Amino acid sequence: MKAAYYKEAGKFEVKDGIYRKPEADEAVIKVAYCGICGTDLHIFHGKMDARVKPPQIIGHEMSGTFVETGSGVTDWKAGDRIVVRPLDWCGECPACKAGNSHICMKLKFMGIDSAGAFQEYWTVKTRTLYKVPENLSLKHAALIEPVAVACHDIRRAKLTNGEYCVVLGGGPIGLLIAMVAKAAGAKVLISEINAYRIQFAKEAGFEVINPLEEDVKAFVENATGGAGADVVFEVTASEPGAKLMTELVRPRGRIVVVGIYSKPPQLDLFKFFWREIELYGARLYESEDFEKGLEISASGLIPLDKLITGVFELADIQAGFESLNNNTTAIKTLIKCS
Amino acid sequence: MKAAYYKEAGKFEVKDGIYRKPEADEAVIKVAYCGICGTDLHIFHGKMDARVKPPQIIGHEMSGTFVETGSGVTDWKAGDRIVVRPLDWCGECPACKAGNSHICMKLKFMGIDSAGAFQEYWTVKTRTLYKVPENLSLKHAALIEPVAVACHDIRRAKLTNGEYCVVLGGGPIGLLIAMVAKAAGAKVLISEINAYRIQFAKEAGFEVINPLEEDVKAFVENATGGAGADVVFEVTASEPGAKLMTELVRPRGRIVVVGIYSKPPQLDLFKFFWREIELYGARLYESEDFEKGLEISASGLIPLDKLITGVFELADIQAGFESLNNNTTAIKTLIKCS
Repeated sequence: MKAAYYKEAGKFEVKDGIYRKPEADEAVIKVAYCGICGTDLHIFHGKMDARVKPPQIIGHEMSGTFVETGSGVTDWKAGDRIVVRPLDWCGECPACKAGNSHICMKLKFMGIDSAGAFQEYWTVKTRTLYKVPENLSLKHAALIEPVAVACHDIRRAKLTNGEYCVVLGGGPIGLLIAMVAKAAGAKVLISEINAYRIQFAKEAGFEVINPLEEDVKAFVENATGGAGADVVFEVTASEPGAKLMTELVRPRGRIVVVGIYSKPPQLDLFKFFWREIELYGARLYESEDFEKGLEISASGLIPLDKLITGVFELADIQAGFESLNNNTTAIKTLIKCS
Repeated sequence: MKAAYYKEAGKFEVKDGIYRKPEADEAVIKVAYCGICGTDLHIFHGKMDARVKPPQIIGHEMSGTFVETGSGVTDWKAGDRIVVRPLDWCGECPACKAGNSHICMKLKFMGIDSAGAFQEYWTVKTRTLYKVPENLSLKHAALIEPVAVACHDIRRAKLTNGEYCVVLGGGPIGLLIAMVAKAAGAKVLISEINAYRIQFAKEAGFEVINPLEEDVKAFVENATGGAGADVVFEVTASEPGAKLMTELVRPRGRIVVVGIYSKPPQLDLFKFFWREIELYGARLYESEDFEKGLEISASGLIPLDKLITGVFELADIQAGFESLNNNTTAIKTLIKCS
């Protein structure tokens, strides 16, 4: 079997990997596709070497088929098509005990803190597995992990049918949030500054505004009869995004912080007080977000195929990652692992 | 009748006022007591002259008795003891239409944007009136307005019996939040830096910590088995408060922003993402907060008498306000208006 090892900043090595026999609570999965996430790019650029210990197999946005399990008895059979929710929680910390194991205080993220899916066979805990519906291809199923992120964000926002929401940032996650929000019956505006992404989002059927060229606040006020947006999703992790989100939201409106801020921005807490704005941090996904992601993806409500802008063989993973350097025209690049 | 007019920074004038006959939807109230709020002090110091137009009668933390109404038919009779919820909402804006009239987008606050209660007779809309229970004195009832603020904050926090909460700031509002939280069955820690207020809060039966002398985060972690606080109330409106609140709260914990920030602090949005923290702005009170405030005050669950640290006659309002200049030992000063 082949596996891709992250060796050092800017370098993968593809070589023979290790088929790890499963423990009683584990299963071996033959990986079909694994997408390249923004975090994987960060790792590739050497920015997470303090957390990732090279040589390491990374990757977590995957689909595949069940091969075998370590226990005699199982709900799965060889050939079952699955996706993995790549979380390894402790089950004992206060967050786990409170039912929030996805933000376990000792959470290990599979593909970062332990071996990932850029390999032919991946051995994982069976509790991480979700069945892929028949009418969803394994290629499309590799997008379930980011779709589940979007489903989680929409759920954190308590977004309901007919509400007006603004998505700040039209990258892969922002687009998926917009798509899941639209599928939930919301009116959606995307704010994005990159010309290619603006065009892409428009072609996907969204209303898009460039905050560097237009007054987003006036636009939203006009669109909502002066009320403001019911929900704002902040996906830019930028200082201007933190400012804009508080300006767009209506009294008692909700802001969901999805973007990963590398430094604390200034935030207009007076406005939070004055308008009784609510802010919700949103990270990863819970079990039901994977179920929901599979359900709406299988229903065809999300144009997953349009989001896949590149596919590389596992042997060419180096080229796959390099193709994304300073590339703003790619949305989602997949690695075909077997 | 006498009325106190704010004339200019640092100056009141007490002189004959105007007994305004009520319109059909109005009532005249004989004011018993009216407390001095932090906002009143701000006005007294000339810091709100852009909003308050001198000469103006200010004051809004009041109690009194019903005198007469402008309509023939009324639910009230002369002598009924009442408090006023000093909000004048438009009923037409998106916030009002969504049921959030207390944060009406055109809200006029009585006693700031229109005449207030530092006078013998105050003419107000009947929709602002709440009946004072028999076993609550008018002196204590003058504190219902700030008690209602605290009730609103507790309700915004969705605070439940047995939860652990931290109140950052032990001034009048912080103390009342602590008291209402305790009455709701929560475990309460107050963080305060002023020696007198620390002592006052301790004597009121609270656990108090000085963040300049002790490690609040370690203290809270220890008290909660490593989890963190369920709820943090931020009442300091300070940069250190904005930092501390994000450090104390547990995964999926709630922060309620009560303090009125004069400039945007830096906020650790990464932590909001990472721990899925929730933040709720909280302003003023809704109708049910006044009802709840009256109920728990009448039940004796809050030691209102201890909070009253000074009483001045209306004729001496100038001395009453001056007594609060740079005074950190006062909690609540009342003006006896009739």
